[in-house]
Amino acid sequence: MLSDAGVVLTAAERDGIEVVDYGLGNLEAVGTEIVVYVNDDRYCAKELVLFGDQTCPEHRHPPFEDHAGVESYPGKRETFRCRAGEVYLYVEADDSEETPREEWAVQPPMRDEYYTAGKEIHLEPGEQYTIPPDTRHWFKAGEAGAVISEFSSPSYDEKDVFTDPKIDRIAGSY
Amino acid sequence: MLSDAGVVLTAAERDGIEVVDYGLGNLEAVGTEIVVYVNDDRYCAKELVLFGDQTCPEHRHPPFEDHAGVESYPGKRETFRCRAGEVYLYVEADDSEETPREEWAVQPPMRDEYYTAGKEIHLEPGEQYTIPPDTRHWFKAGEAGAVISEFSSPSYDEKDVFTDPKIDRIAGSY
Repeated sequence: MLSDAGVVLTAAERDGIEVVDYGLGNLEAVGTEIVVYVNDDRYCAKELVLFGDQTCPEHRHPPFEDHAGVESYPGKRETFRCRAGEVYLYVEADDSEETPREEWAVQPPMRDEYYTAGKEIHLEPGEQYTIPPDTRHWFKAGEAGAVISEFSSPSYDEKDVFTDPKIDRIAGSY
Repeated sequence: MLSDAGVVLTAAERDGIEVVDYGLGNLEAVGTEIVVYVNDDRYCAKELVLFGDQTCPEHRHPPFEDHAGVESYPGKRETFRCRAGEVYLYVEADDSEETPREEWAVQPPMRDEYYTAGKEIHLEPGEQYTIPPDTRHWFKAGEAGAVISEFSSPSYDEKDVFTDPKIDRIAGSY
């Protein structure tokens, strides 16, 4: 999927692709494939790959203090740019901006009660959306999958807060 | 070139491509074509396009204070990732790391005296290099041109310092 999208990786990057099932053991339905290009104390860039109908489950990037040598962090801001395929993104917003659950274009894959953000954004190649810090969001690829470039402030994955208490972001990464 | 590299742009982005000749009036030799995806107070992402043998002239991103609402900025750090074509990158370094000018794989296009950085890095698709703040650098595409993804801390182009005093980054942008 990456090469179809024109993304060239080195052999080391191909070998190092992070496969995340979030500890739910159902990678086909709930998971993300990640190539990290750079993640330092100033910025981060990744490619995210979702298989057809695969979902990245709901989470937020909270502010924190005194962690990993960082005194104070306002939480991760991130821009998702769809490179290939299509993605349905759901973001926490005011009630007036949220689409009622029964009208969502796609549905959560399982454990529906842990999907609450309802502002619906549909991204096709060339389209992008920026998610503020500490804002619940989840996203699901269309049936052909998706390649998403993520540009952001630094990533501290271990600080992510998932709505589903069963999820373990770090242990669920291979 | 962007579409050959698998980069999809919206119509607005295509219309908004920034063409920079740096005020030297010789775009074919000295210039850069830029698509800015995002540039906010926390991070920046762009695609840079160079035509065949086109050069981005030598400059650095210095620290500054009290500018554009920013109290103190350590200077822009940037990661260049080659997506397509090839690029020859020259970065300021210790003498022991610099290649003598007469051995550079490519030569500056004009006004050679304003090209001084000599640590040579050759990037092919999938390869990347990170340039520290306040470090002189310039780069030139191979004969087939290059598409380079740039991930960085925020860009304040107006603060860039070019080695060639004739260059005007802002007035030389269309």
